[in-house]
Amino acid sequence: MTETNQLVNYFLSHRKVTNELIHKISEKHYDYKPTETSMATDKLVIHMLNTFYGFAKTIKTGNPALIFKPAENIPEDLYDAATMLTEITAELLSEVTAEDLARSLDLSKIFGSEITGQQLFQMGMDHEINHKGQLFVYVREMGHIELPMYVSQG
Amino acid sequence: MTETNQLVNYFLSHRKVTNELIHKISEKHYDYKPTETSMATDKLVIHMLNTFYGFAKTIKTGNPALIFKPAENIPEDLYDAATMLTEITAELLSEVTAEDLARSLDLSKIFGSEITGQQLFQMGMDHEINHKGQLFVYVREMGHIELPMYVSQG
Repeated sequence: MTETNQLVNYFLSHRKVTNELIHKISEKHYDYKPTETSMATDKLVIHMLNTFYGFAKTIKTGNPALIFKPAENIPEDLYDAATMLTEITAELLSEVTAEDLARSLDLSKIFGSEITGQQLFQMGMDHEINHKGQLFVYVREMGHIELPMYVSQG
Repeated sequence: MTETNQLVNYFLSHRKVTNELIHKISEKHYDYKPTETSMATDKLVIHMLNTFYGFAKTIKTGNPALIFKPAENIPEDLYDAATMLTEITAELLSEVTAEDLARSLDLSKIFGSEITGQQLFQMGMDHEINHKGQLFVYVREMGHIELPMYVSQG
């Protein structure tokens, strides 16, 4: 129980910051990209949200086929999407047991080897933090100069 | 031993990518910044390198006063700096013991509470990944379009 609360707390310590950044993105900037070959803002945000959701589903169910299955009925508004996906992802993580974390998942087609639920969770965190780092630059380029710390201490 | 090898492997799985990005930065771009309020490229790189070095020193020695003490004699060339700092940081991490990871460090002035060596290591990883995410955007804006995956599988 304590261990899975730690998962949720760690997840939210970064996701809250992601959501603060998303909150600053106005609709006119949804298709913003820093360069021609960059991912557009809306695609980047939805990719981040769906990735952690899929990872959490796979950790909880043990089913590797769910890893890239996006959530259904995602709102068009990016902040609404973030709110919804954060809620259902945190709920999944709150139900994760020590057994789920220790379970070996056959993700060799994607990652080249079997990994445990715990390892997949850490990969989800690293993925979120990497893209959040990019999003910081995007949002600053949109004209915002008051940005949060990269991790929430609250 | 296995546990500390895991630290080094996890560190290098991201640091190798950081260094690939740094390798692409030519001297004329050292002062590049995406916006007026962004951190300049050279400052960002040196900040990343020194931060993990300081964290590793604190984890290994148990001395919180070393956390923001930069390395000495850092080369001007950013890739040389990265090579040097990566080597001495990996060496420190390879010497970290289970006792070092379990040790409580009084970093309350900086982080608001005591944390363990293990927690400080994870914070170092998160810090590296966050800034590496930003560096990806910087380097793409310098004109590079062939960029590595955000984590090295090799």
